[in-house]
Amino acid sequence: MDRIKNIVLIGAGNVSAHLAKALIFKGFTVVQVVNRSEKSGRKLAGLIKASYTGSLDQVHPGADMYILAVSDSALPEISSRLSLSQGIVVHTSGSVGMNVLQSTSPNIGVLYPLQTFRSGKKSPFQHIPFCVEGNSTEVEQKLVELAGMLSDNVHVINSEQRMILHLTAVFAGNFTNYLFTVAEDLLRQYDLPFELIKPLIKQTAANIRHTDLFKLQTGPALREDMPTIEKHLKLLENHKEYQEIYHLISKQIIHHKYRNDKL
Amino acid sequence: MDRIKNIVLIGAGNVSAHLAKALIFKGFTVVQVVNRSEKSGRKLAGLIKASYTGSLDQVHPGADMYILAVSDSALPEISSRLSLSQGIVVHTSGSVGMNVLQSTSPNIGVLYPLQTFRSGKKSPFQHIPFCVEGNSTEVEQKLVELAGMLSDNVHVINSEQRMILHLTAVFAGNFTNYLFTVAEDLLRQYDLPFELIKPLIKQTAANIRHTDLFKLQTGPALREDMPTIEKHLKLLENHKEYQEIYHLISKQIIHHKYRNDKL
Repeated sequence: MDRIKNIVLIGAGNVSAHLAKALIFKGFTVVQVVNRSEKSGRKLAGLIKASYTGSLDQVHPGADMYILAVSDSALPEISSRLSLSQGIVVHTSGSVGMNVLQSTSPNIGVLYPLQTFRSGKKSPFQHIPFCVEGNSTEVEQKLVELAGMLSDNVHVINSEQRMILHLTAVFAGNFTNYLFTVAEDLLRQYDLPFELIKPLIKQTAANIRHTDLFKLQTGPALREDMPTIEKHLKLLENHKEYQEIYHLISKQIIHHKYRNDKL
Repeated sequence: MDRIKNIVLIGAGNVSAHLAKALIFKGFTVVQVVNRSEKSGRKLAGLIKASYTGSLDQVHPGADMYILAVSDSALPEISSRLSLSQGIVVHTSGSVGMNVLQSTSPNIGVLYPLQTFRSGKKSPFQHIPFCVEGNSTEVEQKLVELAGMLSDNVHVINSEQRMILHLTAVFAGNFTNYLFTVAEDLLRQYDLPFELIKPLIKQTAANIRHTDLFKLQTGPALREDMPTIEKHLKLLENHKEYQEIYHLISKQIIHHKYRNDKL
């Protein structure tokens, strides 16, 4: 297998667009964008001077690599309709195993950038963890090489580990953002500026430089300060959903404390 | 009322120690440390060259300000045993109303620094929000002045608002740290380095510069990607507590989405 040069991108969403720009910047050639929706497909293809097709039957057969940057749910069907005799076929999903691709090519793998992508937002890949997996040492090597050109943070991770990683990203990223949303919502309802708790959020995030984060846990639940917990639950009487979160996580913090004490 | 100069500190925990150092640095004099436990009381008093007493009957009567930096639960009893004819008496609690102090002095207030304090850790107050409240314009003015010397981030906030603020800090700070703990724990169990999700956490925290944080929400719940949610819940089969959190917050994210759509 030669060095990867020509790439076909399947999908034209955020991950695909960010990857396309980064790959071109590093000297790769994206020869084709394949996307069911013509509008976004042609838009991305135009931006990066690639050809466009809406049909999987017209996928360029001679590329070195095919990146399926599509939704998890679309992966099985697209895979079943791809059959390539050369080139590495990879997907970019955190929660789908590599083997969904097994009928597409003798050489398959995964290229999973662990970050939230949002359209329009600049996401330089430089420090973003790239998790790669390949069905042979040779494929893995190629993927490590390619990912290493986009990021200084490349890891070989198997499908099971990648799924766990994706799950923890939901806790640490998505759910955390939801807690911030809850705080923002409550402050707004009581005419308080969100600015007030920003330093606390920054401090909490900065604390991840430590290990054993439960040792940094503070607050009413950790202190088992039941009067304050009761007061807070009462304040949330008209926000039953937030009350449920408060109740559940407080209970678990107390529980976790004793579990740790026993170790 | 003259400018505040001489201060008595009641309590010798983290908040008290941090305040003591910052006040002295700004030219205030801490004349006395009052603390039931002699060891920590004398230690703090020695550090800042103040006198020490273990008895509330021996509180220095002529100070300009008395700061009760004690646990919420100790506030009612300590307040009932303090009776001062001059000086401002304040507490530093987020979740207790100002009026717990009403029998202590004609001049009462609150000085609440919104941050997590941990012993040993440097916590410069410079950008930490200070929420102040006084039972008269004059007291409030004095407290704004004093807090303004410690921090560039001073807000006049009444007792009800302060309680909400404290509640939101539990969501955005304490509960967020717990979610990081969950992620750390799961990664450790599957031999994955915590380093892998640090960039995501940094990005999530950096997003608070935006408003309307729910617009930044991503992840399987927002996409209503039920196969991934089911996969994640299955992965958590042996971690029932984490599974409960996953289930509850995912449900709320989906619910929140439709609530917002309706607005």
